[in-house]
Amino acid sequence: MSTVNTAETNIFARRESEARSYCRSFDTVFVRASGSTLTNQEGRNYIDFLGGCSSLNYGHNDPDMKQALMDHIAGDGIAHGLDMYTDTKQAFLETFERLILEPRSMPHRLMMTGPTGTNAVEAAMKLARKVTGRHNIIAFTNGFHGMSLGALAATGNASKRAGGGGVSLNDVTRMPYEGAFGDDVDTLAQIEMLLDNPSSGIDAPAAFIVELIQGEGGLNAASTEWVQGIARLAKKHGALLIVDDIQAGIGRSGSFFSFDDMGIEPDLIPLAKSLSGFGLPFAALLVRPEHDIWKPAEHNGTFRGNTHAFVTARVALEKFWSDDRFVTEIAEKAEVLTERLQRIAAGIPGAKLKGRGMMQGVDVGSGELAEDICAEAFRNGLIIETSGSHDEVVKVLAPLTTPMEQFKAGLDILEQAALSCTGLKHAAE
Amino acid sequence: MSTVNTAETNIFARRESEARSYCRSFDTVFVRASGSTLTNQEGRNYIDFLGGCSSLNYGHNDPDMKQALMDHIAGDGIAHGLDMYTDTKQAFLETFERLILEPRSMPHRLMMTGPTGTNAVEAAMKLARKVTGRHNIIAFTNGFHGMSLGALAATGNASKRAGGGGVSLNDVTRMPYEGAFGDDVDTLAQIEMLLDNPSSGIDAPAAFIVELIQGEGGLNAASTEWVQGIARLAKKHGALLIVDDIQAGIGRSGSFFSFDDMGIEPDLIPLAKSLSGFGLPFAALLVRPEHDIWKPAEHNGTFRGNTHAFVTARVALEKFWSDDRFVTEIAEKAEVLTERLQRIAAGIPGAKLKGRGMMQGVDVGSGELAEDICAEAFRNGLIIETSGSHDEVVKVLAPLTTPMEQFKAGLDILEQAALSCTGLKHAAE
Amino acid sequence: MSTVNTAETNIFARRESEARSYCRSFDTVFVRASGSTLTNQEGRNYIDFLGGCSSLNYGHNDPDMKQALMDHIAGDGIAHGLDMYTDTKQAFLETFERLILEPRSMPHRLMMTGPTGTNAVEAAMKLARKVTGRHNIIAFTNGFHGMSLGALAATGNASKRAGGGGVSLNDVTRMPYEGAFGDDVDTLAQIEMLLDNPSSGIDAPAAFIVELIQGEGGLNAASTEWVQGIARLAKKHGALLIVDDIQAGIGRSGSFFSFDDMGIEPDLIPLAKSLSGFGLPFAALLVRPEHDIWKPAEHNGTFRGNTHAFVTARVALEKFWSDDRFVTEIAEKAEVLTERLQRIAAGIPGAKLKGRGMMQGVDVGSGELAEDICAEAFRNGLIIETSGSHDEVVKVLAPLTTPMEQFKAGLDILEQAALSCTGLKHAAE
Amino acid sequence: MSTVNTAETNIFARRESEARSYCRSFDTVFVRASGSTLTNQEGRNYIDFLGGCSSLNYGHNDPDMKQALMDHIAGDGIAHGLDMYTDTKQAFLETFERLILEPRSMPHRLMMTGPTGTNAVEAAMKLARKVTGRHNIIAFTNGFHGMSLGALAATGNASKRAGGGGVSLNDVTRMPYEGAFGDDVDTLAQIEMLLDNPSSGIDAPAAFIVELIQGEGGLNAASTEWVQGIARLAKKHGALLIVDDIQAGIGRSGSFFSFDDMGIEPDLIPLAKSLSGFGLPFAALLVRPEHDIWKPAEHNGTFRGNTHAFVTARVALEKFWSDDRFVTEIAEKAEVLTERLQRIAAGIPGAKLKGRGMMQGVDVGSGELAEDICAEAFRNGLIIETSGSHDEVVKVLAPLTTPMEQFKAGLDILEQAALSCTGLKHAAE
Repeated sequence: MSTVNTAETNIFARRESEARSYCRSFDTVFVRASGSTLTNQEGRNYIDFLGGCSSLNYGHNDPDMKQALMDHIAGDGIAHGLDMYTDTKQAFLETFERLILEPRSMPHRLMMTGPTGTNAVEAAMKLARKVTGRHNIIAFTNGFHGMSLGALAATGNASKRAGGGGVSLNDVTRMPYEGAFGDDVDTLAQIEMLLDNPSSGIDAPAAFIVELIQGEGGLNAASTEWVQGIARLAKKHGALLIVDDIQAGIGRSGSFFSFDDMGIEPDLIPLAKSLSGFGLPFAALLVRPEHDIWKPAEHNGTFRGNTHAFVTARVALEKFWSDDRFVTEIAEKAEVLTERLQRIAAGIPGAKLKGRGMMQGVDVGSGELAEDICAEAFRNGLIIETSGSHDEVVKVLAPLTTPMEQFKAGLDILEQAALSCTGLKHAAE
Repeated sequence: MSTVNTAETNIFARRESEARSYCRSFDTVFVRASGSTLTNQEGRNYIDFLGGCSSLNYGHNDPDMKQALMDHIAGDGIAHGLDMYTDTKQAFLETFERLILEPRSMPHRLMMTGPTGTNAVEAAMKLARKVTGRHNIIAFTNGFHGMSLGALAATGNASKRAGGGGVSLNDVTRMPYEGAFGDDVDTLAQIEMLLDNPSSGIDAPAAFIVELIQGEGGLNAASTEWVQGIARLAKKHGALLIVDDIQAGIGRSGSFFSFDDMGIEPDLIPLAKSLSGFGLPFAALLVRPEHDIWKPAEHNGTFRGNTHAFVTARVALEKFWSDDRFVTEIAEKAEVLTERLQRIAAGIPGAKLKGRGMMQGVDVGSGELAEDICAEAFRNGLIIETSGSHDEVVKVLAPLTTPMEQFKAGLDILEQAALSCTGLKHAAE
Repeated sequence: MSTVNTAETNIFARRESEARSYCRSFDTVFVRASGSTLTNQEGRNYIDFLGGCSSLNYGHNDPDMKQALMDHIAGDGIAHGLDMYTDTKQAFLETFERLILEPRSMPHRLMMTGPTGTNAVEAAMKLARKVTGRHNIIAFTNGFHGMSLGALAATGNASKRAGGGGVSLNDVTRMPYEGAFGDDVDTLAQIEMLLDNPSSGIDAPAAFIVELIQGEGGLNAASTEWVQGIARLAKKHGALLIVDDIQAGIGRSGSFFSFDDMGIEPDLIPLAKSLSGFGLPFAALLVRPEHDIWKPAEHNGTFRGNTHAFVTARVALEKFWSDDRFVTEIAEKAEVLTERLQRIAAGIPGAKLKGRGMMQGVDVGSGELAEDICAEAFRNGLIIETSGSHDEVVKVLAPLTTPMEQFKAGLDILEQAALSCTGLKHAAE
Repeated sequence: MSTVNTAETNIFARRESEARSYCRSFDTVFVRASGSTLTNQEGRNYIDFLGGCSSLNYGHNDPDMKQALMDHIAGDGIAHGLDMYTDTKQAFLETFERLILEPRSMPHRLMMTGPTGTNAVEAAMKLARKVTGRHNIIAFTNGFHGMSLGALAATGNASKRAGGGGVSLNDVTRMPYEGAFGDDVDTLAQIEMLLDNPSSGIDAPAAFIVELIQGEGGLNAASTEWVQGIARLAKKHGALLIVDDIQAGIGRSGSFFSFDDMGIEPDLIPLAKSLSGFGLPFAALLVRPEHDIWKPAEHNGTFRGNTHAFVTARVALEKFWSDDRFVTEIAEKAEVLTERLQRIAAGIPGAKLKGRGMMQGVDVGSGELAEDICAEAFRNGLIIETSGSHDEVVKVLAPLTTPMEQFKAGLDILEQAALSCTGLKHAAE
């Protein structure tokens, strides 16, 4: 297999920063992608279970979005329009309202933030502080919310935090996620006790920021009961509820939002990743109207409202969310995923299933083993990565549109890799 | 003239956040753009002197970039590849090395950050702190560096800072830009005195972050001498020099970088806005190799390395920066711009020219007047905005590729608007 | 009974800040004090169960300290010597070494900080950060460590924190004290899980700061096992252990230090309150020599090393800590206290005993009731105050030297007040 | 001469923290003090030009204060009363009102803070933030305000700031003191420009905190015009004016407050050092009544309101501030001081006089020389220290009550030391 560590490709080593990362695990040059298949420059195909970290829920180069985008470009549709009014933004907003917001009776407005998840999170944190006049935002163990300084403070990962260069990451208090202390500890009750205690040292919160499935943190999925409890606590203590649906949203959990059917009404919802449908940079913050107290441009950004993304996002909504078929399809695949991952987990002592919907994985008990499995899978044509505090979870983020046959083929590779690595481990012991 | 405040378009009022801003000044729905012309849904053409806030230095929908992008999409080129190796990234890096870095003997590497300017700035600030083990970053009066919390601390604008919701914007010290206290005060000497004084209370700096032309701050353009002085101070005090070339770079100042020919070697250079060439979200941080101490993924982001942007950015480099013709063209236009703006300034008591290259404007002495002029210009088919502490500068950010005739036509509208508004003012007094 | 709200005393209302507090509960003018008795200007005597908030463990105007101090003053002994060498400092240090440090094999040095508890805490927090190169200090729910900004960040009380005027109280992480979530939750195990989890978002700690009996926080007394666990966690994670013995130390807990016989070796021990023995302002930080990396004057203060206090503190050590008699005496009184408080608690539904040694009280279940009891006690000649998150604990801080008869007389008044207020409550219901 | 580095005194090396400092310069054990004379254990007398860093403005052991304090102690007067009402507090307040506040028509109240200067400064900073709802406090180059974390942020000295252990010292903006950029730069005008510019990045200030003579910063004395300008700017921008009169107050500048006769009305005035008159720990914050919005105990402290200090402070006020004689006496001595220091300065190339009143010194151009002079003076029986960014100022802080003959004798020693060291320097060159 070719690698980039050769003369013709060493431009990466020469000129790309050491910060680069995925290319280190997947050391080949990709040239083409379609659906759930990535192709490298030697023409080898790979099944993509990484899915742009949940940015490609509809797969690569969906033909309908692709055509719409090409038509837009061909017709001199606007590529960059700051936050001026455009027909494409209008069509996107109308579609989002009709297919997503109205069916859920959600009164939310869309704030077009800079087209990255971290920017939508920054906007949410700022706004929660403006609305409440408080500083403290409660984030959770193993949470991941972004890399810019405000969002980084809410991110739990120590190595990411170290990237801050030693400045204090302030104005965030950390609370235990459901299950953080084991299944028998009711973290919700503890959080409530801390907030009810005026001597706890926990300042009154502006907001809770929570992922309902922790994508980077190890696929911890909160129960409806716990999520409702957090929503209740937020209300009780005058705090906003921010559901960071960047990775778990847009169908990944099984429904459009990860909180659908949970009976909660988040105040602020950062969206990004698969929002454009096509993998284009795009983010938005959903804001309940009563909290939309921004002054014009008080939070702005050059690329807010990516017009190309408006085009593809609208097509994605129309194609996948006009009726229930996609939800049904996801559910079927999620069931297969659960079954197959359980089988894998059963073969690894102590391993257990994590996550829900199409955001599941196996905690194999050690980061070393998880990484070995992913490396072996890659050698066999499957792109997949790990997650969790110690990278101990093999995480499946396959496009939701992956054809069932290809999906199973990918799972076969994964299972084989797990067997192989576990066998090697066993042999080595 | 149509406005969006009508039934068919009130989706914006209904569903887009109050944070929206440009659409308030330019209250019409745009549908098409080409070169320096924007067209609204009634088919009216506008000359674009806003240029996506310097994100459209090559104009809208440049035909060569457009074709390359369409070819890429048509051929199932990758849209989203995280930071994996792709042929498009490779081609972009090679071109950037060949046309930009090597001719300047710049050893810098490119860090693909999240595709927004603020993200590149955040990466620069983090890295400077990691490299030096210090916290304090020196930013300047009237500087603008972004809206996420780290970058916001370096941004001077009070209304933007208020968006932070009241949390303290730490670890940044503010110093006076050249001319901040008038032409006769040597701010460089003062900064040096403060840094040399161990009791000044100014902690040893990790970095200086500076725009050589302050785009949002009122088109203050630093002299070569002052810039060299800042570079010298940074070296003397063990600090990195960050030149934020997001708005002034990529040809806007007259050369690719705003510091070309100034004899300085910035350590870190955030780029964004016109880097993609096509208005697509894209940002990068240029890093001197000795400072490239990132661990893999220590600063990451889902949309780092926008593959569509790699395609258009490469074409832009090849088309405009393979020889000196573009620089010559910019210089000619800048000369026209200077001449015409001087004429405008001459007609307004106390007005004066600001900026340099194709980043010039007129300080008309009051924000009210400047906004009146821009509003009048818009009524007459020109899109242009203000800048400065009190919005007192009418700022021309026309695409560098604007045909001379159209450029002059735009300036005619501007001059007429200035005359009209000044006249009205005079009449009203 | 006289109150100060009369013409001759309204100087307090006229010229003393609203921040004044105890005088509001004990609204009379005191003129004399001896042992455990305070006398007001009408000549009425009060039994003092407040004891200067544990600053008068040896009572008011102990005759031996009094004589030594008067001799010192009469002989032109130094009153203020900055931190120069004096014979009185020498004698104090030698005595402290001989009677306190050497018997415990404690290698600690004394740092003379500004003569307030908060200053000793500030010094400890600074030093822990210097020693470890880390910022984060772990403090506990219901902890109280002082009012200056560094110490305030470690203080849990919301109304005290509000005094900060809204600035963020940074670089402190809050953890649950033993029992914070009820008796059946092992907070030590939870803290360990958080620190062992690299994605918990809890930055590596510079120190733990802990009171072994929480004086302001409601007389929560940690078990030896829990304290040893915290000491072990500190060691495991490279953090210093700061035992704040300002209120619980100097005999209050039953032994000189609150951690005597617990088998731990704190790195830093802030002392104040009863350290001078006479109620004079005096504080010190005990520092293990390997952590004593201060540069000269790196933390200084005009009144560090109060010379008058050196005199009285030496006498106090010689008089009370030369043999075991005082410890035995405290133990006897503590036993009486436990018994009497249990009797009081038994009469109040839901009430329970809190604390240990001569630092005990009764949690009466409501702040309103506790304050009623204290007010009633004051009317009957006993000075006593409340403690706890909701002021729900009636706290006895009688001088350790209170004669047994007077001690019981005070407890009689307290019991009668409790009965009276509970009766009133019952009657009112 | 004896030094402490001998067997009988090594208790200091063994058991006192490395943070100790003055004892290193004045390496002998002092046992007695009276007036302006300190006596060591060998019976050698030293003239004291250090004056407890301005804490002993009335000299050591003033006989009247001494007697009053002894009477108080002998009569079982209260030593520690928290902030309860006492006859001694009442008498002090009445005297302070009558002799200090009323003659100046000052409506201020006294807040009894913890008995250290830094605590009074912390209270002032907190209160300014509470009153204004703003965070940013403007402090000045070379300012010194204390060592606890809030006050340390306002302190300019880099080595003191390093004591913070690397945490960010937030919510303070540094501005240039008068003369910080040389005599020809109007720093007031610059500060005004920064505050008037909404893009300067300087957040609206809660307060200015300023010393009118910078005691630690090198005896920079602000002009009346500049001080009035700062007062005007504070008013203009809705900020409080905090005059830190801890070192320069209580007669040191020539009048009771350093701002007497300047026509300003500070909002908050921290006092400490010589406030007790006797060198006892004591501090207070003067607060204009309209800003006295503290809730009871919102800022508290165990030793607030040192009762012994109330006794001596009252005597000091009555003895020295009942008429103009003391002011006249200070003025006469200050004149002598100026004359003699000018003569010293004249003998040292480049040297210049600094300060005003009885707070003057000579900037000898180098810290090394200044320290040599002080060391030589000490060898000859004079205790004196340096000040300034580079310790380049030999600073005279003699008790204001020093008899003229002794004062001149001390100045003789100083002059001789200066000649000797300068001669040695010259000889060595």
